[in-house]
Amino acid sequence: MTELGRPSTSAQYKLTARIECPHASGWIARIGGVIGEAGGVIHAIDLVQVIRGNSVRDYSIDASSVEHAQQIVDAVGQIDGVTLHSVSDDTMLMHLGGKLEISPKMPLKTRADLSMAYTPGVARVCKAICEDYKKSFNLTIRKNCIAVVSDGSAVLGLGNLGAAAAMPVMEGKAILFKEFGNVDAFPLCVSTQDTDEIVRFCEQIAPTFGGINLEDISAPRCFEIESRLRESLDIPVFHDDQHGTAVVVLAALINALKVVDKRPENLKVVVSGAGAAGVACTKLLADYGVRNLVVADSQGAIHGKRDLGDNDAKRWLAEHTNPNGEAGPLCEVIAGADLFIGVSAPNVLSRDDVQRMAPSPIVFALSNPDPEVQPELVQDIVAVMATGRSDFPNQVNNVLAFPGIFRGALDSRAKDINEAMKRAAAEAIAAVVTEQELSADYIIPSVFNRKVSRQVATAVARAAHRTHVGRRMPKGTDVLRP
Amino acid sequence: MTELGRPSTSAQYKLTARIECPHASGWIARIGGVIGEAGGVIHAIDLVQVIRGNSVRDYSIDASSVEHAQQIVDAVGQIDGVTLHSVSDDTMLMHLGGKLEISPKMPLKTRADLSMAYTPGVARVCKAICEDYKKSFNLTIRKNCIAVVSDGSAVLGLGNLGAAAAMPVMEGKAILFKEFGNVDAFPLCVSTQDTDEIVRFCEQIAPTFGGINLEDISAPRCFEIESRLRESLDIPVFHDDQHGTAVVVLAALINALKVVDKRPENLKVVVSGAGAAGVACTKLLADYGVRNLVVADSQGAIHGKRDLGDNDAKRWLAEHTNPNGEAGPLCEVIAGADLFIGVSAPNVLSRDDVQRMAPSPIVFALSNPDPEVQPELVQDIVAVMATGRSDFPNQVNNVLAFPGIFRGALDSRAKDINEAMKRAAAEAIAAVVTEQELSADYIIPSVFNRKVSRQVATAVARAAHRTHVGRRMPKGTDVLRP
Repeated sequence: MTELGRPSTSAQYKLTARIECPHASGWIARIGGVIGEAGGVIHAIDLVQVIRGNSVRDYSIDASSVEHAQQIVDAVGQIDGVTLHSVSDDTMLMHLGGKLEISPKMPLKTRADLSMAYTPGVARVCKAICEDYKKSFNLTIRKNCIAVVSDGSAVLGLGNLGAAAAMPVMEGKAILFKEFGNVDAFPLCVSTQDTDEIVRFCEQIAPTFGGINLEDISAPRCFEIESRLRESLDIPVFHDDQHGTAVVVLAALINALKVVDKRPENLKVVVSGAGAAGVACTKLLADYGVRNLVVADSQGAIHGKRDLGDNDAKRWLAEHTNPNGEAGPLCEVIAGADLFIGVSAPNVLSRDDVQRMAPSPIVFALSNPDPEVQPELVQDIVAVMATGRSDFPNQVNNVLAFPGIFRGALDSRAKDINEAMKRAAAEAIAAVVTEQELSADYIIPSVFNRKVSRQVATAVARAAHRTHVGRRMPKGTDVLRP
Repeated sequence: MTELGRPSTSAQYKLTARIECPHASGWIARIGGVIGEAGGVIHAIDLVQVIRGNSVRDYSIDASSVEHAQQIVDAVGQIDGVTLHSVSDDTMLMHLGGKLEISPKMPLKTRADLSMAYTPGVARVCKAICEDYKKSFNLTIRKNCIAVVSDGSAVLGLGNLGAAAAMPVMEGKAILFKEFGNVDAFPLCVSTQDTDEIVRFCEQIAPTFGGINLEDISAPRCFEIESRLRESLDIPVFHDDQHGTAVVVLAALINALKVVDKRPENLKVVVSGAGAAGVACTKLLADYGVRNLVVADSQGAIHGKRDLGDNDAKRWLAEHTNPNGEAGPLCEVIAGADLFIGVSAPNVLSRDDVQRMAPSPIVFALSNPDPEVQPELVQDIVAVMATGRSDFPNQVNNVLAFPGIFRGALDSRAKDINEAMKRAAAEAIAAVVTEQELSADYIIPSVFNRKVSRQVATAVARAAHRTHVGRRMPKGTDVLRP
């Protein structure tokens, strides 16, 4: 909400209205006034044409919701002397025809081009790969291309929308890979939600790609799919909803601990949410040296005495976390916690809960768009706070992690993305924030900071080499190319 | 072979040799002379540097084979005073990192860009598709993107190389789709050769794509895979090895018949080869009105009394072709044929065979690189001849068909590519050659003739609309866009 009590406008609700009015002074101010009164923010006014004493102009307007956009348009339509020709939704328009293009990297204008890129010359390249499979990593797109695979079962916070409706997200992900990591990524939304079929599908496409990024696949199926594929394939498989989030959370934790001057081994950490992100955060933090981790789902803390059905991930948590066997709802186990990590649902944490945390409490409330606790409610009593939103300080955003991680994995031709590589990525993200810059309001670099993916890539490639999953030592130029 | 008895050089065997020699006049001529004597053709000489009284230059040289390239390099290496620094194979170099790039169609530089192309704005696009599946054809890449799927079981003339080694061909195919049809195409080579698995795979990827081009899948599996997918999917599925060839053969036939002044219903056509291309050519020609078709495989003519095992395609041929029940080897059934179509193996047709064909015989000898009969052997006795090679007149090349066919199918949002659309494509290709231009040496337009794919696209979209498989009537601009 803005200070005036109106919801804030956003580019995602940008509309373009084509408006005709008399071609005389005063009309733009009058129309602008009506749009402003209705809460719209005008970005640009472009003249389309002047015809029969009237002018036709395109008004680019930010609104705060679809309904708000309609209210603005209605208000304009009621001005005497004004004709509304058309209204377009800029986000929808941007998506017309999709967001990706596939282009040749070389010209194909002459017979000579054709004879090298296609028949007959290409036959020699095929034979070279047939004789030595490893050459496929050099002589085909798999050198720089990964698949973004989803079954559409857990799309953003929207739930199970299915394959076709998941495509815009996966295309967006592919854009981010290219923009931030110079990784070619192709989205593949599959019309099955059967675990075995998804595993088999990924095995079948493996020869085409240098890696597979799993995306928006619901828990607990995502755990089994990823672990079976890591076992069977010779290219890295990475479920970003798990590890992308975990890596950025660890980066945030590393810097937050500097702010509050605490050490991981002494922390009590409470994780709200035992889905993809919650499980992965817990594992990566345990690997980092956090000993007292308590994970709570909607039924409360997970411990060894609860009936967890056949959810392997929760059974793993029951065995490996909660050393003191704490039971009960989140509002009980939160007592004495140094860090709260919310990857669950809006408003599950109260101000009162935060007050019962240990001194200098750290709160990562990552549910999106509505966090586990609104920052305004607790800003005076937390030492450090992070959310998933771009309109508060310290945004935990996976885009800080996945482009650099795959860049590093491809450059080192890694077979896997292991814990050491994830930890290296987290440390690299944290290190982008210098000691001088570090503060409670700046523990995580901006998503637009271009240093991040380069430094993550370098760190990940080195970790791959160190842990013997890299099959190639990248040259500096490779790693630093994006 | 050139007139000098040397095999002709080709860009596919281009090499770049980095050669150091004294920086004095006469040396370039001397080195050029040695390369020329060895049969190499120099394209360019680029100075790299002059150092210590020596010059280092890159010589771009066409050779005629890998062995020939080595001979040239060896000859240069033996010149006194010359140092050979490195030799690179330009075709291999061109393939480093693959031939395709995946790029965003819009900038992603600001928060506003991010909020429209990705979260949170993208959620609205996902919901719109979830509510109305048809919108996926407008709001995702499937509006203009097809898959090129292969199992690597029949790669070019090379045979079963498997998935990884087939990639360079599929990437090349994707380039051709983009270059000639403005179709975004993504190659997917799958590590299975099981018919059921390939069918299931294509069904799974369907929500991502606007069409599927099957490629280099061996017969007879390719027939079953295609027909099952045409049944189960709502996007067009097209096995190019079958129909691409058939469409261009029909185009060639249409124009060849004008040259010899014959009509399809009076022809005797003998097809050598009952693989993917042979079966599809036969079906399309039958659909066009050719009544007397005889197909011969390596065992001779296919007829109703032969044991054809469980090969459904050959059983179909036995039932629907060879109305006179001709039996025996190709050299017998060729007698009296008006047209020979070879999609089989080198040198299966002799001059003597051609002499026993009907008056004004037409020979399409499409085996590549070595045709069923060498043109030199029969050029004085054929009325019209076509091959698959670019160094003879009348090259039958699928690239004349597939880019325009998919362009038209996408623009009309066709559910299928049916016989009417294929026939329309063939007629459009044939029509590019005007009555004035038509001659025995020019029945098929050049692959670089940009008119072809546009006219094919228009004809295919119209045929889709006419036969009710099109779901959208394209605007002229759509069809003519490439």
